[in-house]
Amino acid sequence: MILIYFDNAATTSVDQDILNTYVEFVKTCFANAASNHLLGYKSYEYEKQARQIIANLFKKKEEEIIFTSGASEANNLAIKGTCFQYKNRGKHIITSTIEHASVLEAFKQLEKEFNFEVTYLKPNKNGIIEKDQIEKAIRNDTIFVSIMMVNNEIGSINDIDTIGEMLKKYPKIIFHSDITQAIGKIKVDLKNVDLASLSLHKIHGFKGSGILVKSEKINLMSQISGGGQEFNFRSGTNNVPYEVSAAKTLRIALKNQEENYQKCLKLKNYLVDELKNIQGVHINSPINGSPFIVNFSIDKKASVVTEALSKKEIYVSTKSACSSKKSSISYVLKEIGLDDKISSNAIRVSFSDNNTLDEVKIFLVELKKILESI
Amino acid sequence: MILIYFDNAATTSVDQDILNTYVEFVKTCFANAASNHLLGYKSYEYEKQARQIIANLFKKKEEEIIFTSGASEANNLAIKGTCFQYKNRGKHIITSTIEHASVLEAFKQLEKEFNFEVTYLKPNKNGIIEKDQIEKAIRNDTIFVSIMMVNNEIGSINDIDTIGEMLKKYPKIIFHSDITQAIGKIKVDLKNVDLASLSLHKIHGFKGSGILVKSEKINLMSQISGGGQEFNFRSGTNNVPYEVSAAKTLRIALKNQEENYQKCLKLKNYLVDELKNIQGVHINSPINGSPFIVNFSIDKKASVVTEALSKKEIYVSTKSACSSKKSSISYVLKEIGLDDKISSNAIRVSFSDNNTLDEVKIFLVELKKILESI
Repeated sequence: MILIYFDNAATTSVDQDILNTYVEFVKTCFANAASNHLLGYKSYEYEKQARQIIANLFKKKEEEIIFTSGASEANNLAIKGTCFQYKNRGKHIITSTIEHASVLEAFKQLEKEFNFEVTYLKPNKNGIIEKDQIEKAIRNDTIFVSIMMVNNEIGSINDIDTIGEMLKKYPKIIFHSDITQAIGKIKVDLKNVDLASLSLHKIHGFKGSGILVKSEKINLMSQISGGGQEFNFRSGTNNVPYEVSAAKTLRIALKNQEENYQKCLKLKNYLVDELKNIQGVHINSPINGSPFIVNFSIDKKASVVTEALSKKEIYVSTKSACSSKKSSISYVLKEIGLDDKISSNAIRVSFSDNNTLDEVKIFLVELKKILESI
Repeated sequence: MILIYFDNAATTSVDQDILNTYVEFVKTCFANAASNHLLGYKSYEYEKQARQIIANLFKKKEEEIIFTSGASEANNLAIKGTCFQYKNRGKHIITSTIEHASVLEAFKQLEKEFNFEVTYLKPNKNGIIEKDQIEKAIRNDTIFVSIMMVNNEIGSINDIDTIGEMLKKYPKIIFHSDITQAIGKIKVDLKNVDLASLSLHKIHGFKGSGILVKSEKINLMSQISGGGQEFNFRSGTNNVPYEVSAAKTLRIALKNQEENYQKCLKLKNYLVDELKNIQGVHINSPINGSPFIVNFSIDKKASVVTEALSKKEIYVSTKSACSSKKSSISYVLKEIGLDDKISSNAIRVSFSDNNTLDEVKIFLVELKKILESI
């Protein structure tokens, strides 16, 4: 059986080593980290260790690491938590039109239900939001900017370090970035970023596990209020085995990052070069984008092609899993200026370090066969 | 080594069978349930099956089961999600003073930050909120009532079926109940309840896994907005292995419920009878409460006693883990009319089906020794 999994931007398989760690901790460290007895203290100590490891990896403090149930929760907490907390300073907020659904929908809710005014910035044809464009949109009552680092459909990379540096001139503005498709894949520097969201399941960790990195100077209104866990910003019994696994997942991903980057860059370059030779193919990913994502359109119905590939156990996606049920057209491709036909017939190939050049070659052979047959 | 774990109201150990199921599904069913390919469809099918099993157990429809990251999230989603959604119908809401922190803090946030008016009902000396008391508090602008089924510190049981029946006379009012300490332990009937929250880690399932049972007639404003998972009420990549495990956890717990109830009732009755013979002990749990929780106070410093028990590998708590870091005094005991001294020196013994009468006997021997020595 050849099973070729090229949908790693949607989710990845769990690393066996990380799974083993989880199982070990479920068995040996089950007590509530908030319980006042030795078993509870033990859980708390492991949680603290995990938090420390993660803080060090990001060059942040322990109290700047908030465990969440995933990037969607982290994005919502960062966006609504900040905007509710600082609403008296102003009600204008800025984001881009090609953010992940969990960012866009949070902004729309603030706009529709809580009287915030939103400026949605349109990216250029490479899927990039420029620093100057953001600066032009800033008003006296702007309190929040959210710009993703790597776009999940096309892999375009925003320079969040430079954007964050520019935003430092505006002390009232808090800067958030969704780094879910960046972390463990490309170099991330959070020194100019106030809030950053990520999930672990995109880098061989667990679904239901995420992190919000939050500058200590920022206060948030909690979404999940209660027992006061996570420094009062996110309540709920801590899932210590997940937290320990999260630390391990990040440690492994960051350790292997450069190697995996180079490996996937080779896959991407090979794939793009070959795709260019296929008639009717249009490459949608920018040339300098993430090596982990190749988005291209075909002049046939993409869903028919992905279905046919799927039957041969080659798994790619038409677009983001988080918008796959909504419409056949990609809002990301529309926003970078592509027409409806191209935007409706995109295929996203997304790599992990588990993929090989042989898989890319098989994929190309099968893709050509399918394209010729329909 | 004797390890006696009597802190099951805080969390339980994970059942080996449930852990095995989880591991199997992590390995074989890792694809994103929203992905448009065969692996994604497979994940989605398992998710659907899990949801169906849970819906059947509650006599509800599939679309009335919402997976969350735990009871704290489910409580917050039920409370804020409903109140935000229906705020134009009225802004008066009702709860009790002895709810779990995740309910109380959600109400306080609505009161302080979003202009809701809250009536906090005081329980009687048995920790019970009476139907008539709720009805008296209802106003023309009341839209929401939240009353827990089993109190997590003392085990008092509210008759949520009768309360829900009464509330049906008020079609504008939505009724929520936190059933976390009830489900799988005592008989739960949700036919008169609009929203019910629970977590799986109190019944040998996983931390980070919860459910909101939601009547289909109710709309909620999402807390975690995004890709539209969970019928648009709770976004984020679905954790299918957790969902399958949740269905299994509930199935096992409900299958063994009556047997476990009788087993723990024997433990409770024995423990309470023996405690009554110890000088200076005051039983705080009501006589007809949950057999899984025995709360009593001593005339010594409780934290010293639990610390000493902990060193002998006997693990009990002073109060709820979710309020353990906040203050030494129990707000629940204060609210049922106990004085500061009793309320500050409580010990909570909470059982699971894994506990035995021998453990209770050992606990009593050690407790007496400690009480005599200080």
